[in-house]
Amino acid sequence: MDNIGAMPSKPSARPPRRDTYTPESLLAVAVEVFNERGYDGTSMEHLSRAAGISKSSIYHHVRSKEELLRRAISRALDGLFAVLDEPEANEGRAIDRLEHVTRRTVDVLTAELPYVTLLLRVRGNTRTERWAMERRREFDHRVAELLKAAVAEGDLRADLDARLTTRLLFGMINSVVEWYRPLPGGASDGARVADTVVRLAFEGLRKQ
Amino acid sequence: MDNIGAMPSKPSARPPRRDTYTPESLLAVAVEVFNERGYDGTSMEHLSRAAGISKSSIYHHVRSKEELLRRAISRALDGLFAVLDEPEANEGRAIDRLEHVTRRTVDVLTAELPYVTLLLRVRGNTRTERWAMERRREFDHRVAELLKAAVAEGDLRADLDARLTTRLLFGMINSVVEWYRPLPGGASDGARVADTVVRLAFEGLRKQ
Repeated sequence: MDNIGAMPSKPSARPPRRDTYTPESLLAVAVEVFNERGYDGTSMEHLSRAAGISKSSIYHHVRSKEELLRRAISRALDGLFAVLDEPEANEGRAIDRLEHVTRRTVDVLTAELPYVTLLLRVRGNTRTERWAMERRREFDHRVAELLKAAVAEGDLRADLDARLTTRLLFGMINSVVEWYRPLPGGASDGARVADTVVRLAFEGLRKQ
Repeated sequence: MDNIGAMPSKPSARPPRRDTYTPESLLAVAVEVFNERGYDGTSMEHLSRAAGISKSSIYHHVRSKEELLRRAISRALDGLFAVLDEPEANEGRAIDRLEHVTRRTVDVLTAELPYVTLLLRVRGNTRTERWAMERRREFDHRVAELLKAAVAEGDLRADLDARLTTRLLFGMINSVVEWYRPLPGGASDGARVADTVVRLAFEGLRKQ
């Protein structure tokens, strides 16, 4: 339980202040700053200060702040959409596929926490943000379709509106970014969280 | 379903630009601006422009921006804590009390949407924000206690961690502010949303 604090913890210490960055490690710093200050509130100057390298060094790695946003969001989206391509998401009864997707979505969320946090916070002021929102809707739509298929196959209750239920399911899943933090040393107990989400969503609180 | 859009809708039109404000109607404008710009990003100048009255007219109603925040958050908290004082939250089996509190929390959230949205977004930079977060924790704690009591009475499944489950339950409930909008004319279908939340949380998706 140590990783479950009442409030989000402070961001972890930043990399050493030398330009030993790879595109990936620079991205990790940028995502941290975007999540702290908001994308709109972040300037190249902020990124330069957080990374401890000059703006021109940053421009050596990327063309723009928006490119960093696009790369970060791609990482989150690639992880989420990859779940939909897994065999377990495509074979068998819809209820089992839906359960697999629910569990693996939580896995991706905890494994790629800062990237998914950023994805969930974008609000559509730039082309990249509008694209991110469009892809999120597409993901949600694919899950809603699974949910409808599971109702049609008679495994999910039919007395709940599919769209509203999908929203609430994602509301529960996505809320994990608000408080989940990896264990010290980077270990994850994301599997425990994923398991609880699945049991709560599919079986409910009430003892059968 | 018309009130459930894929993305949050634009804020509604603002009141006429004359100082015919009461403390309540000025508060409604302020909350709208806080939710749009963030509390930190809102100046008295922004409030003056949004309300269409001078800053000194605003100071006729309130002493400071923080007073507006405190009043707005109090309105949300008063609504939420009043639920815990209702007879149905205090009599009978814990599972029924928990179900009542869940349902009524969603009711308050939809009825007091902008105020609860603001409450859920505060992050603790001022004394008022820290107080708001403390009160939220207190509310969550009271609900977690109900959940534990329902497990002890044998009505809720015992295989879920109470703290994690409470977080996920509130994650689902609180996500409603992200997409819920009142019907045109101000009518509410909050009761339908509350009913779906209760069924999903207590019975789960799977057909029994």
